[in-house]
Amino acid sequence: MKKLINSPATVLADALRGVEAAHPDVSVDYANRVVSRGADVKQGRVALISGGGSGHEPLHSGFVGLGMLDAACAGEVFTSPTPDQMLAATTAVDAGAGVLYIVKNYTGDVLNFEMAAELAAAEGIEVKSVLVADDVAVEDSTWTAGRRGTGTTVLVEKIAGAAAEEGRDLAAVHEIATRVSENGRSMGVALTSATVPAVGKPSFDLPDDEIEMGVGIHGEPGRKRVSLRPASEIAEELVSSILADLDFSGAPVIALLSGLGGTPLIELYLMYGEVAALLEQRGITVARALVGDYITSLDMAGCSLTLLRADEEMLRLWDAPVNTAALRWGV
Amino acid sequence: MKKLINSPATVLADALRGVEAAHPDVSVDYANRVVSRGADVKQGRVALISGGGSGHEPLHSGFVGLGMLDAACAGEVFTSPTPDQMLAATTAVDAGAGVLYIVKNYTGDVLNFEMAAELAAAEGIEVKSVLVADDVAVEDSTWTAGRRGTGTTVLVEKIAGAAAEEGRDLAAVHEIATRVSENGRSMGVALTSATVPAVGKPSFDLPDDEIEMGVGIHGEPGRKRVSLRPASEIAEELVSSILADLDFSGAPVIALLSGLGGTPLIELYLMYGEVAALLEQRGITVARALVGDYITSLDMAGCSLTLLRADEEMLRLWDAPVNTAALRWGV
Repeated sequence: MKKLINSPATVLADALRGVEAAHPDVSVDYANRVVSRGADVKQGRVALISGGGSGHEPLHSGFVGLGMLDAACAGEVFTSPTPDQMLAATTAVDAGAGVLYIVKNYTGDVLNFEMAAELAAAEGIEVKSVLVADDVAVEDSTWTAGRRGTGTTVLVEKIAGAAAEEGRDLAAVHEIATRVSENGRSMGVALTSATVPAVGKPSFDLPDDEIEMGVGIHGEPGRKRVSLRPASEIAEELVSSILADLDFSGAPVIALLSGLGGTPLIELYLMYGEVAALLEQRGITVARALVGDYITSLDMAGCSLTLLRADEEMLRLWDAPVNTAALRWGV
Repeated sequence: MKKLINSPATVLADALRGVEAAHPDVSVDYANRVVSRGADVKQGRVALISGGGSGHEPLHSGFVGLGMLDAACAGEVFTSPTPDQMLAATTAVDAGAGVLYIVKNYTGDVLNFEMAAELAAAEGIEVKSVLVADDVAVEDSTWTAGRRGTGTTVLVEKIAGAAAEEGRDLAAVHEIATRVSENGRSMGVALTSATVPAVGKPSFDLPDDEIEMGVGIHGEPGRKRVSLRPASEIAEELVSSILADLDFSGAPVIALLSGLGGTPLIELYLMYGEVAALLEQRGITVARALVGDYITSLDMAGCSLTLLRADEEMLRLWDAPVNTAALRWGV
């Protein structure tokens, strides 16, 4: 295993030091492993919290800031954060208008965020949760009942964050977050496995001439292993799988082509070119696009495609100012 | 070789299609492989052009836009663009106030930009060039006489771009670009080799327990191969090598910790945490920091550190609005 780390046991703690050093506008609670906005909490605004296992950066800590998350709870690599962490984040950022939890559909995350919501309620903080389960590859998975939650999470965080920034109440922020979650679909492909630092070897074996179509962001098995093939054919499979699951016709689409951590930007743009051409052929209009590393899987090579069937309100909230480490415009 | 490509011969052309599809605000001249601002050229403003071999994305096409480059010339992977491409870019973006070429110190790039400047002069366009030769690892290298040009290029493009946007004349933009170039220092480390698509196998062999200290962005040999070691020790070597080369005391520093393409963000933040701690120990103040993939080497695992001995004017220009695919703030 070749990684820029000190020891497998300190990866998360050491990385959080770097986040705080690079971004003076966020603050890090090292005891609870919570990254939150450094600025004073704005009274009366709904607060947004997400979190999950580490190894998917910039998700979630890179999305903390104006117009997006108020706090991110970082678990150990590929391990859910605990209810205690989530509660600490909740009490830190609640501004009296309630808190929205944005939860990717992995059993540990779901259970722990549910428990945290109960603990928060006991302290008088109203919490609602939105579940993201957008990965069309498979039903049920290694750590998931139902579908896994992947790239749509980024879009929920952005759009619901903008809604909260506008001063909408918790019910309204929850409503639009749910609408985004329900209208987003994703699928990924792995060219290599990731290596979890504490394990020290690749999570799965993938022959040199094979790829895993529909892989999960922790290396969960996808739909099938197929031979390595041209990017155009891989794009065709991702696009057609997503379009078979939801009708995207007639709506503006927000597209996210995310790298999985080990794939360079030149390949991501190349893949996005294929995706854009396929969508255009099918008469689907991409209104906004993001290409880069937004939801990753450590050093896994590959990418994931997320398409959101958006509407004018979502586009307006998408375009609203955002000021985070990984997504920034309008400010 | 496992890559998201169609064929080695079409990597650049296919990637440019993705750039144009993802970023409606830039335009791509496919015949000349030039990415330029889509908006009308602002008469009387100095234009900035850079370029080089592909495979270092987002450098340079990701830095085209308000406050940074007017155009980027993309060569084939790890191959200089031609004078014809550079001339096409020059005539496309010249707005009557002259053009600044930002050139990384590789022999092919240097010669071709020199020839392009002569061709432009013959067409009545005034051109000045700034050379970036900031890599402290070695003197002379596989494709370089003198030092290689690396991460400081990003800082030159940002700061000189802001100066041009303010309406300074060509001599003044050239002056600050030169000042940034002279005050920036870089060094990188590779954990793995990159694989050039047209070659199909890693550019060099690196045993599983060794790293290349001082590697070039095309895989050029560095100072030495050493055993894999903790991130803190790697950071110490990068920092001390750079500080031994230039006195950074008493000045605000802009720090860039760039991934080389195959290293995930969690490791880059971890490395930056180590770098920041070392600089603080030595009484050096980081005024601004960037962590992420900004100058890469295809799928190479590793990172490079760039430190700029800045001044108040550079910081002000650094903070000025920029609106590009890879760097965006203030707009």
